[in-house]
Amino acid sequence: MSLDLARIEATLLAAADAAAARTLPLFRTELGIDNKLEAGFDPVTEADRGAETAIRAVIAEAFPDHAIIGEEWGSSGSGRYSWIIDPVDGTRAFITGAPVWGTLIGFAEDGVAIAGVMSQPFIGETFLAVPGRATYRRGGEPTPLRTSGQTELGASRLFTTTPALFSTPELMAKWLAIEGATRLQRFGLDCYGYSLLAAGHAELVVEPFLNTYDIAALVPIIREAGGAISCWDGSEPTAGGNVVAAATPQLLDAALELINRA
Amino acid sequence: MSLDLARIEATLLAAADAAAARTLPLFRTELGIDNKLEAGFDPVTEADRGAETAIRAVIAEAFPDHAIIGEEWGSSGSGRYSWIIDPVDGTRAFITGAPVWGTLIGFAEDGVAIAGVMSQPFIGETFLAVPGRATYRRGGEPTPLRTSGQTELGASRLFTTTPALFSTPELMAKWLAIEGATRLQRFGLDCYGYSLLAAGHAELVVEPFLNTYDIAALVPIIREAGGAISCWDGSEPTAGGNVVAAATPQLLDAALELINRA
Repeated sequence: MSLDLARIEATLLAAADAAAARTLPLFRTELGIDNKLEAGFDPVTEADRGAETAIRAVIAEAFPDHAIIGEEWGSSGSGRYSWIIDPVDGTRAFITGAPVWGTLIGFAEDGVAIAGVMSQPFIGETFLAVPGRATYRRGGEPTPLRTSGQTELGASRLFTTTPALFSTPELMAKWLAIEGATRLQRFGLDCYGYSLLAAGHAELVVEPFLNTYDIAALVPIIREAGGAISCWDGSEPTAGGNVVAAATPQLLDAALELINRA
Repeated sequence: MSLDLARIEATLLAAADAAAARTLPLFRTELGIDNKLEAGFDPVTEADRGAETAIRAVIAEAFPDHAIIGEEWGSSGSGRYSWIIDPVDGTRAFITGAPVWGTLIGFAEDGVAIAGVMSQPFIGETFLAVPGRATYRRGGEPTPLRTSGQTELGASRLFTTTPALFSTPELMAKWLAIEGATRLQRFGLDCYGYSLLAAGHAELVVEPFLNTYDIAALVPIIREAGGAISCWDGSEPTAGGNVVAAATPQLLDAALELINRA
């Protein structure tokens, strides 16, 4: 049985829309952060759970035999095909009103993500990949996503969510090596950073300790846009781990060499 | 001669629109960062200069006798009234395609900013203050801006653009003190962070070494939204310096005490 890619794409987009209906009403709510906690109401948790529930319903209806792995509700099902969900990636962004969080939904075949969507519904942006194509859409027609094609570390723009992720001296040495080798560094973007890389606006993202739901959806978006992504040991990153994403395979190799030497 | 506040507001908004017409066409341009530099074309510099020129033209037509201080083209004129411009605050955001930069235009009387605008034209957001009123607008009607009203450090969400700003051991000690006292920290937001504070989504921004054009427009936005802002020595921040912005005067006092003790 071959994969129905059109149906997978439609399911990714429908699930992202269903998630937006749960996340947007809770983003930038006026309740103070204390009030929420005192009342036992945490808008991020509410958004996370509500969105994942909505996403799971869309997937289960379209592909009842596929496995689903979600940040909030764990794993269900098994088999060659799995959907991997982070309903709100970028919790701190969500909590502080910054519109650089995203809803991530990946689709994997035999443990390798081959299709995925990153949706930022406040801005109204969708970054999508299916085999053979990566596209960006904000209203109007989708346009192709292409990385910048950069191959040189010294010319690269580097993202990581926060340097605090590099929480041991060994990890910090790796961060300092890559920071020192690149042209410009920027913090605080989570999934939005990987999406900007796919769109050609940055060249490297380096982050340790990712879970599968942090990265699976982004793997095909980066690859189909011409980029390359792997764990620091060169292995497949769909399952998570310490990850580097790069604008080109050459740049990925250069970054891995630097990180593994540091 | 009393100030014509309606005309000041109209000028702020018209100048922000004029700036957007110069910045947006250069944001997320497809030219690689290297190509731009090799060709002598730097889109941030182009956006900065073009936008400041457009802003100055709008102000000079409306208020030919007022002084103008801009990041790109320096100071012109003198007197009680001045307009203080940062055409693209958040250069790294602009360079990397992240829509958290902004155009800042402040209006000061006797060296204290009393009106200002922060415009993020890609998302379509405007944060505006005139004496007695601070508002947010994204399409539709403007809504009031209010800080969260938080008074406790331990419950506060803290922003700074990057910990690298705290570039000496003395400064880093101050950063670590405030970081350790707060609930959540987030990097990478520049003017967007101050605007989110005014909107109630964060409680503290702490940054050293600001220029007047980095902060003047944001001073009235924070104050008119119920927040408080000063230099670390308690002095007026319109001219720049080491700055703390807080959701309430009580929280500002608590942050200043901590910073000055560290």
